[in-house]
Amino acid sequence: MTRRERTFESMWAQLADIGREPAGGYRRFVWSAADLTLREWFVGEANARGLGVHEDRAGNLWAWWGDPSAGNAVVTGSHLDSVPSGGAFDGPLGVVSAFLAVDRLLERGTMPDRPVAVVAFSDEEGGRYGIACGGSRILSGLLPGGRALSLKDDDGVPQSDALVAAGRSLDDFGADPEVLGRIGTFVELHVEQGRRLVELDAPVGVASAIRGHGRWRFDFDGRPDHAGTTRLEDRADPMLAQARLVLAAREAAERHGCVATVGKVLVDPNAVNAIPSRVRAWLDVRGDDDELVHTVVEELSLAVAVEAVEESWTPRVDFEVGLRDRLAAGLGGVPVLPTGAGHDAGILASVGIDAAMLFVRNPTGVSHAPDEFAETADCLAGVDALTTVLGDLAWT
Amino acid sequence: MTRRERTFESMWAQLADIGREPAGGYRRFVWSAADLTLREWFVGEANARGLGVHEDRAGNLWAWWGDPSAGNAVVTGSHLDSVPSGGAFDGPLGVVSAFLAVDRLLERGTMPDRPVAVVAFSDEEGGRYGIACGGSRILSGLLPGGRALSLKDDDGVPQSDALVAAGRSLDDFGADPEVLGRIGTFVELHVEQGRRLVELDAPVGVASAIRGHGRWRFDFDGRPDHAGTTRLEDRADPMLAQARLVLAAREAAERHGCVATVGKVLVDPNAVNAIPSRVRAWLDVRGDDDELVHTVVEELSLAVAVEAVEESWTPRVDFEVGLRDRLAAGLGGVPVLPTGAGHDAGILASVGIDAAMLFVRNPTGVSHAPDEFAETADCLAGVDALTTVLGDLAWT
Repeated sequence: MTRRERTFESMWAQLADIGREPAGGYRRFVWSAADLTLREWFVGEANARGLGVHEDRAGNLWAWWGDPSAGNAVVTGSHLDSVPSGGAFDGPLGVVSAFLAVDRLLERGTMPDRPVAVVAFSDEEGGRYGIACGGSRILSGLLPGGRALSLKDDDGVPQSDALVAAGRSLDDFGADPEVLGRIGTFVELHVEQGRRLVELDAPVGVASAIRGHGRWRFDFDGRPDHAGTTRLEDRADPMLAQARLVLAAREAAERHGCVATVGKVLVDPNAVNAIPSRVRAWLDVRGDDDELVHTVVEELSLAVAVEAVEESWTPRVDFEVGLRDRLAAGLGGVPVLPTGAGHDAGILASVGIDAAMLFVRNPTGVSHAPDEFAETADCLAGVDALTTVLGDLAWT
Repeated sequence: MTRRERTFESMWAQLADIGREPAGGYRRFVWSAADLTLREWFVGEANARGLGVHEDRAGNLWAWWGDPSAGNAVVTGSHLDSVPSGGAFDGPLGVVSAFLAVDRLLERGTMPDRPVAVVAFSDEEGGRYGIACGGSRILSGLLPGGRALSLKDDDGVPQSDALVAAGRSLDDFGADPEVLGRIGTFVELHVEQGRRLVELDAPVGVASAIRGHGRWRFDFDGRPDHAGTTRLEDRADPMLAQARLVLAAREAAERHGCVATVGKVLVDPNAVNAIPSRVRAWLDVRGDDDELVHTVVEELSLAVAVEAVEESWTPRVDFEVGLRDRLAAGLGGVPVLPTGAGHDAGILASVGIDAAMLFVRNPTGVSHAPDEFAETADCLAGVDALTTVLGDLAWT
């Protein structure tokens, strides 16, 4: 094993047990004990490199090499939180690779011409409060702080309570234009969530675009009653509407060339012998064409006769072409590919920041699941590519 | 308000806050804090009447007037547990009415010729471990004690742990033929779960039969993956099969003249942006004809290509005709009606014990829901009827 492999494996091992579920996946919801441990790990890694750490008003963590107030910073990083039963790579690979790339740049022995920062965005997956990219949306003002504070998790705990429990001040929570204004360029490295790089036989690629994507909630209300004594014709059973939504979503997605998923369902009271009083179902729809995504949602609302509550919507983002091509060329002409997954890089691009993404090959394409994986050799190729890109950007 | 009304309202008020959910329903799962409080209440009511209390090996509570070992006892009562978000009447009305009927019989001033007991059966709803009538099934040996101990709740806690936490001995847990053998006749008073008595304009009725009923679990396994990046054709999404089951269940029930309900669904990992790895759905089917109930379940297994795991099955029970007619005649010819709800009286009847049921009118017919209701006047008519019936049985 080379020294670089050992360093990567050693950092990776420190994260391996944090927020791990008995079945092997990760549950690292924002402001949970696991999330706080991951934040401590971030602070430790930054301190070990002499980087100054700062948590912004939206809960995102920053480690600075150089003067933050100089502006036009070259920023890299990703996130540390996960979906429930998530994989190890989605998020943490970008943060670990960022620190390892900074290690390599520190070896140059000269200060960069632009300040360099490593960022860990907060609550990227939205696993707890239902809104993806929470940290970057709040930072940039796309999600108002007051609304974010009032969001509740599935146990009914508002984010404000979780923040207080985590020792954070509610007074300061919200958009942070000063921090946002420091970012000159953001480059996020991420494990690929698909098999395009496998098909192209390439360890690393550059992102072209993030497809339009959103989340909608359907509240199906029924009349709670006894499952054994209520005649079929007397029932108002909301589970039937949920079932129709699931099947109609698949059909509409096929017809419109999108993807649509009902991945989360909550049933009240969820008893075998009770007709539910309410079923809530969450619909995730994504596509190359924003119009078609909305057409799918509108068709489904009509089909089940319930208004879809939009919990989040991110239009298609095309990454800045000049930066994208500079990265791809600087890496010797690596593939350029779109993705159906949302990312903080897309949020920042949508508010006018130069942003780009690097993808690292994923042998199975699986993500948001325990089987999510990348070979160490490919991860190190990702660190090499990120080092090249950051060096090119930070030393003018 | 009459004295009898005051006594009823006062006993009812003592139960009103135990296990109450913020939304107004009740959650009184077996061995929960609410259940233990209800058991204390039962002991207090028994002691106040000078009745000796005993908890059998299956966790059922007994209050005795007279010598239990004499045998051929006249037993009345019901249960104190609830489904999640259940109503106030399903179960407790039968226990409260039992105590009030005993009060009236005590006024006779003579010992009955047969011992009289009030029983609160444990875990009738099966809300925690999924098997209805748990207490009477274990008592009678229909559910082996070892299997009952290993049943887990939705948090993965086995009943054995819950029993230890509740201070019960595991060594003795199981069938209790000695206690079962004491029961000569069992009469359970219960709020009606339907509107038949409303239609017949009668406050009280007598049960003819309990329809065959059971619960089956369908485990749909899929391949967890990212909801945004996985092509539709590459997916193994178990939510689609759950949806097909829900719609097919309704269709098959209509075709075969049964009722079928999917009231409980658990999704793993239940994340908006993740294709589920597994969806479990519980199916409740009931009908007048046991064969047809099984036909529905078999058709559904074929339709979704997943074997249905039978969690419980109770064949149709016709209550003993002589006892049924004696009760109806003794009450002046009240209506005789069947029910689709399972009851401990049905379990006891199925093992050869003379059992009967009295139903009290329910204005809306709603049950297993917070709106479940009975007018106080009808509840007192139920106590009158139960007093008549018990007096007729216990004084020969």
